[in-house]
Amino acid sequence: MSPLDRLRARIVASRDGDPAKSYTASLFQRGRKRIAQKLGEEAVEAVIATAEGDRAALIGESADLLYHLLVAWEAAGVAPDDVWAELERREGMSGIEEKASRGKS
Amino acid sequence: MSPLDRLRARIVASRDGDPAKSYTASLFQRGRKRIAQKLGEEAVEAVIATAEGDRAALIGESADLLYHLLVAWEAAGVAPDDVWAELERREGMSGIEEKASRGKS
Amino acid sequence: MSPLDRLRARIVASRDGDPAKSYTASLFQRGRKRIAQKLGEEAVEAVIATAEGDRAALIGESADLLYHLLVAWEAAGVAPDDVWAELERREGMSGIEEKASRGKS
Amino acid sequence: MSPLDRLRARIVASRDGDPAKSYTASLFQRGRKRIAQKLGEEAVEAVIATAEGDRAALIGESADLLYHLLVAWEAAGVAPDDVWAELERREGMSGIEEKASRGKS
Repeated sequence: MSPLDRLRARIVASRDGDPAKSYTASLFQRGRKRIAQKLGEEAVEAVIATAEGDRAALIGESADLLYHLLVAWEAAGVAPDDVWAELERREGMSGIEEKASRGKS
Repeated sequence: MSPLDRLRARIVASRDGDPAKSYTASLFQRGRKRIAQKLGEEAVEAVIATAEGDRAALIGESADLLYHLLVAWEAAGVAPDDVWAELERREGMSGIEEKASRGKS
Repeated sequence: MSPLDRLRARIVASRDGDPAKSYTASLFQRGRKRIAQKLGEEAVEAVIATAEGDRAALIGESADLLYHLLVAWEAAGVAPDDVWAELERREGMSGIEEKASRGKS
Repeated sequence: MSPLDRLRARIVASRDGDPAKSYTASLFQRGRKRIAQKLGEEAVEAVIATAEGDRAALIGESADLLYHLLVAWEAAGVAPDDVWAELERREGMSGIEEKASRGKS
């Protein structure tokens, strides 16, 4: 089992637990707007760590960010395989082609 | 090889390529502030998709977010194993304990 | 007329213009999700400038952020006076009391 | 005195106060990385309120965002007039021209 699969298994096992005892359960209870907010907060910290080149902070913030991203996936009915399939779909395209395919700047 | 390992291998292989041809190489050339900015942009889109419960958008934005997160790791000298070790360290702690251990709200 | 009032007047005057000629009109045409996304992008840049103590960048990014914030207000039917009234309501409370009143950490 | 001028006067008056009693003083004590982080958190909430078209939430989050933005200005030595001058400089340019002048997408 990969580290992300283990993390996801823990999230799935906790989601219907007691919100007073489990942070994960409390997130699901408060709903997708709260989950989005926490995802954004952790992303902001990862962004700052990246801009500052702060390796230790980026490790910790990335763990926080991935945890909240996997909670967001679970809340939205996204399976990890959905994202891996999307990553594979883009593989083979160069970054520039990929960017064009997304219509992004 | 896991999907993230493959994604990382592509990033590592591209980082010193021609910035005119590779989006990945262009990110590394512009440096960590630009990488942080793009990471933040993609996170904002994942946050909006999460808040709206937009499953299809969350899949696409998560792929974008993970790609830019792995670029950020590479730029800061973070190996995936550093983050997996941090996730494992937290395993066994409950979310609430974990939150306390991080001194977070 | 204050600088923000002038900025708002320009936004109001442009919102129903030709999206091909006016960036403001194009934002309103694409809708609130796009406006939220651009607000987030500019905020990320202001966050990075703040973390780095980059005064010149913070001035430019703040102008961008305020512009997109005022577009967001207009899109949501928020008048500047609504926000000024909220700021006044909080005045007189200390920051700590205010934080408590918001139930925030 | 405009609402933002009053808000700024309060921030300036509080910045060297007792961090145990004043949230504003505690922000300055913790420094620009913390200020950037809080600015980002409030921005995320304003982004979500904008995407959802939640008028009441956007009013409250905008007050939070403007407060933290003014703290960030003070921390970086930015005077409100610096930002107003930047906004005026851009006035007269159309949004599209302005976007081009910023080299932004």
